[in-house]
Amino acid sequence: MQRAFTRYAEGSVLICMGNTQVLCTASVLEKVPPFLKGQGQGWVTAEYGMLPRSTHTRSDREAAKGKQSGRTQEIQRLIGRSLRAVMDMTALGERTIQIDCDVLQADGGTRCASITGAWVAVADAVDGLLKQGLLTKNPLIDSVAAVSVGMVGGQPVLDLDYPEDSGCDADMNIVMTGVGRYVEVQGTAEGHTFDRTELNHLLALAEDGIALLAQKQKSARLG
Amino acid sequence: MQRAFTRYAEGSVLICMGNTQVLCTASVLEKVPPFLKGQGQGWVTAEYGMLPRSTHTRSDREAAKGKQSGRTQEIQRLIGRSLRAVMDMTALGERTIQIDCDVLQADGGTRCASITGAWVAVADAVDGLLKQGLLTKNPLIDSVAAVSVGMVGGQPVLDLDYPEDSGCDADMNIVMTGVGRYVEVQGTAEGHTFDRTELNHLLALAEDGIALLAQKQKSARLG
Amino acid sequence: MQRAFTRYAEGSVLICMGNTQVLCTASVLEKVPPFLKGQGQGWVTAEYGMLPRSTHTRSDREAAKGKQSGRTQEIQRLIGRSLRAVMDMTALGERTIQIDCDVLQADGGTRCASITGAWVAVADAVDGLLKQGLLTKNPLIDSVAAVSVGMVGGQPVLDLDYPEDSGCDADMNIVMTGVGRYVEVQGTAEGHTFDRTELNHLLALAEDGIALLAQKQKSARLG
Amino acid sequence: MQRAFTRYAEGSVLICMGNTQVLCTASVLEKVPPFLKGQGQGWVTAEYGMLPRSTHTRSDREAAKGKQSGRTQEIQRLIGRSLRAVMDMTALGERTIQIDCDVLQADGGTRCASITGAWVAVADAVDGLLKQGLLTKNPLIDSVAAVSVGMVGGQPVLDLDYPEDSGCDADMNIVMTGVGRYVEVQGTAEGHTFDRTELNHLLALAEDGIALLAQKQKSARLG
Amino acid sequence: MQRAFTRYAEGSVLICMGNTQVLCTASVLEKVPPFLKGQGQGWVTAEYGMLPRSTHTRSDREAAKGKQSGRTQEIQRLIGRSLRAVMDMTALGERTIQIDCDVLQADGGTRCASITGAWVAVADAVDGLLKQGLLTKNPLIDSVAAVSVGMVGGQPVLDLDYPEDSGCDADMNIVMTGVGRYVEVQGTAEGHTFDRTELNHLLALAEDGIALLAQKQKSARLG
Amino acid sequence: MQRAFTRYAEGSVLICMGNTQVLCTASVLEKVPPFLKGQGQGWVTAEYGMLPRSTHTRSDREAAKGKQSGRTQEIQRLIGRSLRAVMDMTALGERTIQIDCDVLQADGGTRCASITGAWVAVADAVDGLLKQGLLTKNPLIDSVAAVSVGMVGGQPVLDLDYPEDSGCDADMNIVMTGVGRYVEVQGTAEGHTFDRTELNHLLALAEDGIALLAQKQKSARLG
Repeated sequence: MQRAFTRYAEGSVLICMGNTQVLCTASVLEKVPPFLKGQGQGWVTAEYGMLPRSTHTRSDREAAKGKQSGRTQEIQRLIGRSLRAVMDMTALGERTIQIDCDVLQADGGTRCASITGAWVAVADAVDGLLKQGLLTKNPLIDSVAAVSVGMVGGQPVLDLDYPEDSGCDADMNIVMTGVGRYVEVQGTAEGHTFDRTELNHLLALAEDGIALLAQKQKSARLG
Repeated sequence: MQRAFTRYAEGSVLICMGNTQVLCTASVLEKVPPFLKGQGQGWVTAEYGMLPRSTHTRSDREAAKGKQSGRTQEIQRLIGRSLRAVMDMTALGERTIQIDCDVLQADGGTRCASITGAWVAVADAVDGLLKQGLLTKNPLIDSVAAVSVGMVGGQPVLDLDYPEDSGCDADMNIVMTGVGRYVEVQGTAEGHTFDRTELNHLLALAEDGIALLAQKQKSARLG
Repeated sequence: MQRAFTRYAEGSVLICMGNTQVLCTASVLEKVPPFLKGQGQGWVTAEYGMLPRSTHTRSDREAAKGKQSGRTQEIQRLIGRSLRAVMDMTALGERTIQIDCDVLQADGGTRCASITGAWVAVADAVDGLLKQGLLTKNPLIDSVAAVSVGMVGGQPVLDLDYPEDSGCDADMNIVMTGVGRYVEVQGTAEGHTFDRTELNHLLALAEDGIALLAQKQKSARLG
Repeated sequence: MQRAFTRYAEGSVLICMGNTQVLCTASVLEKVPPFLKGQGQGWVTAEYGMLPRSTHTRSDREAAKGKQSGRTQEIQRLIGRSLRAVMDMTALGERTIQIDCDVLQADGGTRCASITGAWVAVADAVDGLLKQGLLTKNPLIDSVAAVSVGMVGGQPVLDLDYPEDSGCDADMNIVMTGVGRYVEVQGTAEGHTFDRTELNHLLALAEDGIALLAQKQKSARLG
Repeated sequence: MQRAFTRYAEGSVLICMGNTQVLCTASVLEKVPPFLKGQGQGWVTAEYGMLPRSTHTRSDREAAKGKQSGRTQEIQRLIGRSLRAVMDMTALGERTIQIDCDVLQADGGTRCASITGAWVAVADAVDGLLKQGLLTKNPLIDSVAAVSVGMVGGQPVLDLDYPEDSGCDADMNIVMTGVGRYVEVQGTAEGHTFDRTELNHLLALAEDGIALLAQKQKSARLG
Repeated sequence: MQRAFTRYAEGSVLICMGNTQVLCTASVLEKVPPFLKGQGQGWVTAEYGMLPRSTHTRSDREAAKGKQSGRTQEIQRLIGRSLRAVMDMTALGERTIQIDCDVLQADGGTRCASITGAWVAVADAVDGLLKQGLLTKNPLIDSVAAVSVGMVGGQPVLDLDYPEDSGCDADMNIVMTGVGRYVEVQGTAEGHTFDRTELNHLLALAEDGIALLAQKQKSARLG
């Protein structure tokens, strides 16, 4: 994780996991969405995009097609929910932290890299607010990170740097906080359904992966 | 579950769970999406919509706004994946089963009702293909159903007829097959994160709920 | 006509004419469009949609296509004008009655069924306003209903339950009030033009049809 | 009516009625819509638009807004149906006549002027096809024209050059062929409903107006 | 140039250059875009469109396609910039002059004709404001006109009435004020790049053309 | 200029000019647009985008807004034309080189950086085709680069690393080939018009800037 990768965003992190590279920025906006106006609390939201040639074969630019795909919307909603789970909205005050995750290179696990990197960007943006005295108390309750685990050839695999959707029987994205509480559990088994024993294996594996990532986030923040 | 609710669709089921009412239709189309052409296998896909006044206060019509919300897209993708998990695409042959789930009245759990009802509609549509001799072998591997479970006031609750998103700490949608294998596990804890013990409680509760629904699907199909 | 078909809308009517089934809801919104703000009068407007599999072969979902067809817009404008013709906007006060007509099953005459059913839904919604004391005087001046008449094989036919646009030389939709005054006359003869004598026959036939529907509306409201 | 107003279209007519000015062009396209392919018959279709400053106050450009209004769609569908009513599609052969009606200046009655002018443009385009030997028989069965009539202050008025929608109790557009057969009857009484006697007066007035216009179309074609 | 071509716009000019005919209107709106509110200055903006059959073969209507092409946007931005270059925004006061250039017939050079004609329309609109006493000082600093020049078969050509993009090696649009200062220089050489000598020839030719047009603008304004 | 910045694109260059950073990729697609099919020649086209937080304050994501701005379309059309000017389309054969320029950080001059970087990416992609034997002759006729020059406080300035649109009286983008021939000349003087002497100064300055960039492109390609 490379912090301050670009200079204008209040938080800007390039996260590399395997060949996946995602630029995560956190922008502080001194406004909240209409449904929160005048309620003394903030908001965290996210948008996600892939550069057209971040993948092996070029995919169409969503801006040119005129709409975001269902997949894009699912991912950006997931990133937003994950970061909101560790933010004390009242402590944040009436402002929005707008996250942008843009995939420069995609080799699987882009949504997990996005969440993990976005947390560091948000933490940097919050630091700025604290330094400027705009916040007196850190509104971040904990860190948050995400891993992908899956059954490959009948074996549970921690999917940190594995090609997305390839040869994978079942696929699970787990988002957890630094202290190990669940934020999101999203498992899908389009190809092969799984039983409770396999589910338990996947959950255990994910827990280990998250612990590792939480450690790396801490190091990145110190570095 | 009321079968043959409308007369033109190959399968047409009105499912009522609490005050939630969803009309699920399955249409058989003798074509497949471009990416499957000439591969000798079929496809199952789904669309989802809510009538504007299915809810307590009227929401805007998506056709008039000119786009489907991220929530709509998430739900229709989930329905499609769930049904594909129990369909043998090669046995189905080069045809598509198009599911439409339209919410007439919404009182929580519309995505679970949609999946549970859609399976009955798809099964009816498949019966028709078998009766017409267009299929010689049933391509449905198993039944599939979905429940919503959640932590409410610290207690795990089976969310069959509970107002969506109200007073709920954490919310989990579980999709399972008739024999009890997992298809989808989607838990989210925007308000309160949860730990592994709570997760286990929720999974157990969901398993019971699914068994009950699988029973009701069987009865509906016999009735 | 089945009243209170769904529970949340202020008026909710399922109207069945032949195999055509339309769910008509009337929602009371305590606001008016911008062009009426502060003028002490209300508004009535309508939207119309068909469920994708309401027809013999599935048609595309307008929300997924991202726009409403010209036909949909024509019909919803017609419904709105028809209901406004029997509403005293000043007596209604600064509120909007929003009508939604959603076709569950289509076997011809959906626009006529929509207008006829919508009136009952609007009347029920107005009743609610009167009961709550939000209105002191009934703003509905009269009832309104619609029939379709046409020349089929040279003979004028009252088209209450006839397949839309099939084998029909000329087609006319007539909207009239309960006392028999014209609100809309929409005749079209794409196939075979018609002369004044034929027009007179069609108008007479429509008048009889409307009288019958006005009677049914009255019964439904009493029932 | 000024023929050959622009030089590229196969038919091009500027029609002025009162202060209303509409440029009607007819373009011959050697193709038919997909639903008619290979059936040996042609098609006539129409589009309609208003220049932003054709009216007293500027209205938004539909191309900039990204969609055509419901009113625009209604009008262009009406123009298309009216012209198709006098065209023998088999005699036209597998080609499309595409009509464009663009309002340069609007002072009421733009849809009637469009239909009346479009017929002359189509007739000119058909002449071209006959001259080039692409057609051996004239596929135009008759002429077609349209007038607007209405009740103003309780009196039926022939609305050839009257401001649209102003002070008018009821408004009726009548499209008739040269020999006096009805193609479209579109009456609307949003403000004041009308009875059969008034309807008869309006129809008689329209008949006279159409006869006059049919005469002017004939003169324009000779001139 | 024919002034007052339509009657409602504050300025309305039909400009014909060769077979190209563009209707340029200037509308005075008593408002400014949001970014200028309360700053005591005005704005000039432009929109551009082509009637579908203004060209040899019919092109699709942008309103029907639902978006303006990149070419349309480029041209309307160019027209807006050109007119703003000769307007003293403070002297104009908090109002907008909205230009609409609609091509009735296109035979090359539509963007140059649009700018040249739009200036006359704007000047007429400004005259109206002066006459009504809404302005005390003329905010127009100078006139502005545009020509197209190009290399054709190795020879520099003044492109006043030449088919657009045909047989032309390099193409340059020059916008200049009445006193001969540059506003825009847009040269493109997709086919054949050009050297400095050729550029100088083109610039000299353009200067002559502009002087001629400035003269014609003056005459039109006096006439 | 950092080549092979991402791994999947056939050419991938990160170009930094001042604080501006643009990722330029060239993708080889074995197809051509419909209008070129079967003509034995290739095509070069470009798309352009800015990451939402590439700028000082966050701008809206075009994919979320559902359309590309006029500015975006102008720039991507300019990039495409510039690269096509140095490509021998017949030598390229029936394939498309698709350029994507995505701005990671914007500090003025993004369109010039895009063109300059894109050429290196295209040259790398062409090298790949030559190495694979898919091309036998290099279809690139020359290099191409772009600079921005402008009048700042009355002085001509070479705008290699200057904040876009700030305090600049006139602004000119010049695209030239390696041997010094003009491809595009785009000068605009919204604020202050300029005379011929100033134009000559700007052109001279641009020529020097281009020579420098052509040198850097050569070095980058060797490095």
